[in-house]
Formats: sequence, C-alpha cells, structure tokens
Amino acid sequence: MQRHFEEQLEQLRERLLTMGSLVEKAVHLSVESLEQRNESLATQVIAEIEPQINNLQLELDDRALQLLALQQPMAVDLRLITSTMKINSDLERMGDQAVNIAERALSILSQPFHKVSIDLPRMAEISEQMVKDSLDAFVRRDSELARQVVLRDDEVDQFRDKVFGELIACMIKVPRCIQQSLDMILVSRNLERIADHATNIAEDVIYVVEGQDIRHHAEARANAKP
Amino acid sequence: MQRHFEEQLEQLRERLLTMGSLVEKAVHLSVESLEQRNESLATQVIAEIEPQINNLQLELDDRALQLLALQQPMAVDLRLITSTMKINSDLERMGDQAVNIAERALSILSQPFHKVSIDLPRMAEISEQMVKDSLDAFVRRDSELARQVVLRDDEVDQFRDKVFGELIACMIKVPRCIQQSLDMILVSRNLERIADHATNIAEDVIYVVEGQDIRHHAEARANAKP
Repeated sequence: MQRHFEEQLEQLRERLLTMGSLVEKAVHLSVESLEQRNESLATQVIAEIEPQINNLQLELDDRALQLLALQQPMAVDLRLITSTMKINSDLERMGDQAVNIAERALSILSQPFHKVSIDLPRMAEISEQMVKDSLDAFVRRDSELARQVVLRDDEVDQFRDKVFGELIACMIKVPRCIQQSLDMILVSRNLERIADHATNIAEDVIYVVEGQDIRHHAEARANAKP
Repeated sequence: MQRHFEEQLEQLRERLLTMGSLVEKAVHLSVESLEQRNESLATQVIAEIEPQINNLQLELDDRALQLLALQQPMAVDLRLITSTMKINSDLERMGDQAVNIAERALSILSQPFHKVSIDLPRMAEISEQMVKDSLDAFVRRDSELARQVVLRDDEVDQFRDKVFGELIACMIKVPRCIQQSLDMILVSRNLERIADHATNIAEDVIYVVEGQDIRHHAEARANAKP
C-alpha cells in the first residue's frame, strides 16, 4: 500500500513537471512569435500546446483527487497533493496568458509595422525566468530559490509601469501607433499575470517545504534578504 | 466524530459565503467608485475590504486542510472540500481585480473629466450578476444556475471586444482622451477576469453537485441549452 502510494505520488509529480514544461514552452513561443513577428509560432501555441495543457490540467486534478480519496495522506504528503492542485491551476492560467500573448502577436502582425522601442523583451525575459525558477524550486524543494522568485515580482510590476508610461507617450505623439501600442500594453499585462502565477507557485513551494504560509505576509517574504 | 465533522463542514461553508459577500461588495464598490467618481469608495475597497478578503483566504485554506487531514472525507465531501479551496482562490483573485478597478478609478479621478460613452456599466452589471449567481448556485447546489453562469461568459467577452473597439476609435479621434480610455480598457479587462473567475466557480459547483468536470469541454457546457 505504502509503496503503491509513493509510486502514485511520484507519477503525480512527474505529470506536473510535464505540464510545467509545456507551459514554459507556451510562454516562450508566444513571446518569440511577438518578437520575431512569426505567425506559425503563435498558431502553434494556440492550436497545439494549449489544448495539451488543458488536458493535463484535468488529468492532474483527477490524479490528485484519487490520491486524497484512496490513500488519505497526512502532513507533508497532504500539503504536497493540495499544493499540486493549486500549482496545476496556476500553470493552466499561465497557458491562457500565453494564448493571449499569441493572439496579440497575430493582431500586431496584421498591422503595418512600426518599430516601438520599449522594455517589453526584458520584462518577458524576467517573467520567463520566474516561471522556470518556480518550477525548479518545486523540483528541488528549494524554498530559498522560491523566495527569490517572490521578490522578483516587484521588478516585473516596475517594468509594467515603465512600459505603460512609454507607450502612452508614444500614442500621444504618434496616433498611428495607437493600436499597436495598445496591443503591447495588453501583452505587458499578460506577462505581469504570468509573473504573478509564478509567484503563487513559489509561495506554494515554500508552504510544502516549510509548512509556512507566506501569502499576504510581507515580513515573511522579506526573509530571503539577510 | 461524524457530527463534529458535519459541524466543521458547515462552518467551512459559512466562512466561504462570508468571503463571497465581501468579494461581491468589493466588486460592487469598485465599479461604483468609477461610475460615481467617488474616491472614498475606491479607498474603502483598497484599504479595508481587500485585507479582510486576504485574511479569510488564509483561514479558509487552513480550515479545509484541517478537515482533509483529520477527517479523511470521501466522495461528495471530498469534492466539496477541494472545491472550496479552489473557489477560495478564485474569490481572492476577484478581490485583487476589484482593487485594480479601484486603482483605475483613482487614476481617472486625477485626470480632467471627459465623458466617454461606452458599454462599461452594462459589462460591469453582467459581471457582478455572474459573481452573485455563481455564489447562489454554490449555496443552493444549483447546477442549472451554474451552467447559465458558464454560458454568460461569452457575453462578457463580446462586451470586452466592443469596449476595446469603441475606446480605440475614441483615442484616435481625441488624443487628449488617451489616458482615460486606456484606464477604461484596463477596467474592462478586470471585469472580464472577474467574469472568468465566476465561471470557474460555476464549473466547480457543477463538479460538486454532479461529479462531472466540464472544464475545457464545450459540449458539456452547452447542455444547459435544450
């Protein structure tokens, strides 16, 4: 019974990582489709990757619920399973955000090209890194890395405000850039939400490893800084 | 033991409804602050209501986890508890969106007043009704009402696209409206997300009542239509 449980738990963990890889790929390709003005990458995210993510979400919830029902786990295993359900939900929503970015990329591609020089690529880079780090923290049960992810969330918010200011200035100066600038603002919001979900995952990792719930507690978040 | 469990389950349900009422209030007041240009309503959402929502989120997760650990519930009770955790998470995120709307209202208040005639109030009305109906469906275990919520999500998405088009047209015609129009576009996105979370809750209600997971299955969603 115990060995069977361990195996099932390991399978749950592996499937969550498969889902994580797919979401990382979706986020990466959606940003690439925008930066390289590549329609087929955007279509790949929308038509191929997201349906796989959705299927995995259902499978993972089902596996987690089976484990709760049949094995009645305690303490750390219980925290791991309920956190897996939360991480699963955050990953699926990241996938939705990647689809939104891909849709914006398609919208931008349909417009005449205006080079708008803003900090979006850097913002995308940080958000992608947060996704990667939050999943690595989960794999390695590394609550220190998870705390670093939580702290980077503010950096993304600062980029969001900077991008917003730059694009408004651009819209006022060059009205023919309005549509494209708007698309870019919405992409920056999607990236911000991806970073938020990565932060949620990092908070779940800290909870699984340390049993400490740091959501909404600024003082606990700051513990990463010596 | 069984009676104690029933009592605790009932308490969990009641606290979730308290949280639901607070979130409904936050959404309603944030929209009012925007429509009535009322700064104190916006501040109330940000400084008073959201911290209460955050505290309740932690309390509810804690209660749910205790029930899972100590009572090891089966079947419908297990679905109810894990769904409560999911609904809890959706409610907290709705609270975040209400805060974002309140912040946009404060931004709009700081700008010179330009009357922008768009469908935002109607969109707000539908989103608020979806929040209310999803919670009523939970209270009454009414999967039919829940299905209606799921179906209304498309209506909100249509409003979002309509508002977007109207505001872009306005920005191009009257450049001094750019900042305010942008704020309105972001509010329409916040309302869209609130409607999405209400849809998630409705899907959870269907799952609790019928044991059927309708996420990502368009054909099951359509069952509400005869």
